Amino acid sequence: MSTTPSRPLRPIAIIGGTGPAGMGLALRWARAGETVIIGSRDRERAQKAAQAIQQAVGTDATVSGMENAAACAAADILVLTVPFESQASTLKQLKPAIGEGSILIDATVPLAAAVGGRPSRPLGVWQGSAAQQAAELVPKEVSVVAAFHNVSAELLGGDDPLDCDVIVCSDDPDAAQLTRELAAKIPGVRPIDGGKLENARIVEQITALLIGLNIRHKGHAGIRITGLPPAAYK
Amino acid sequence: MSTTPSRPLRPIAIIGGTGPAGMGLALRWARAGETVIIGSRDRERAQKAAQAIQQAVGTDATVSGMENAAACAAADILVLTVPFESQASTLKQLKPAIGEGSILIDATVPLAAAVGGRPSRPLGVWQGSAAQQAAELVPKEVSVVAAFHNVSAELLGGDDPLDCDVIVCSDDPDAAQLTRELAAKIPGVRPIDGGKLENARIVEQITALLIGLNIRHKGHAGIRITGLPPAAYK
Repeated sequence: MSTTPSRPLRPIAIIGGTGPAGMGLALRWARAGETVIIGSRDRERAQKAAQAIQQAVGTDATVSGMENAAACAAADILVLTVPFESQASTLKQLKPAIGEGSILIDATVPLAAAVGGRPSRPLGVWQGSAAQQAAELVPKEVSVVAAFHNVSAELLGGDDPLDCDVIVCSDDPDAAQLTRELAAKIPGVRPIDGGKLENARIVEQITALLIGLNIRHKGHAGIRITGLPPAAYK
Repeated sequence: MSTTPSRPLRPIAIIGGTGPAGMGLALRWARAGETVIIGSRDRERAQKAAQAIQQAVGTDATVSGMENAAACAAADILVLTVPFESQASTLKQLKPAIGEGSILIDATVPLAAAVGGRPSRPLGVWQGSAAQQAAELVPKEVSVVAAFHNVSAELLGGDDPLDCDVIVCSDDPDAAQLTRELAAKIPGVRPIDGGKLENARIVEQITALLIGLNIRHKGHAGIRITGLPPAAYK
């Protein structure tokens, strides 16, 4: 959580970025001064979404909208915020557009809602998690990071600081650190190193639990991890 | 979290209660004025553990030690804190001793450590969770509740208030409420209604994640659920 950037400023492309989670991340990162590209299957929709973020943040923001493949080509930090039912097809289609040194931050959650079931129940994914499925589908040499599953999209899209931690899982320590830095740019969020990508299978399932709690208790649930030393939250 | 008890005071039997989790719960409940029975396969070990709790809490405490079957027969609130590898055999053996109106609060976590693997990886349980396996093994008319998986045993065994929430899952609303009342007696713990017993499969897995965080960051991790209205924490 250093205030000096550990990398040159480079655009963040949010693939499938016109949904609530993508828009919320775009808003928060644009406010933090990041260059954000909103990707969508529909270029016009992406551009409208970018205009909405630009208006919300003001003239300082650098937000543009592109078709998903163009967004992949224009950035090497990619954040995937599509519904799980679109994850595999989106990645297969975009594979040629994803540069070899890219980082793919996967935020998709395998919920039974993807197959007509309840959003409070996870689906079993053969690879173990949506993030591990993503890792199978991207070009070799693309690092996959799992993060941002448990952040309330509604609260992300608002003005108040959040009250939640983001557990970041990846087999690439550098990509994980960059992702934790991006998470720390969202007010109120503490990033936590959650270890290897395989741990995403637990982090993804927590979202289903939180959705169940939201339905039962009418809230916007998030999680905080307590009991760790300060150095863990960075 | 009402201060007036909603039930007559009756003993809580902690089955497999001489391990760190069982001892921690016994300590906290004895301090809160509950009548606690520590159960063990070995009666003498149970009695020694009870003496240790009695000494820690003082003369006001009502703690006794019994062989597990005797503990089951002497109480109708049973808390199961055995390692997962002993859960099924313990329940099969104790089945005749468990009274029909009993409540079994299952705190076991299916970790790969049970089969020589890592404690940071959950095992797949055919029934979905350890709690659902327990529900198959207890006598009919015994209500199973899943709770207390994510409370640090080390911190439970200490003097400080905890900083964590206990998510309680059960198909029996009355048993779940009683369990939430017991959780609320532990200083610093907020109970949360986590819905049906099937949701235990996610709550149990969170323990594996927390153990991984403890190993990685040298802590005693717990979780807090944020973003719910005050009425949810009771």
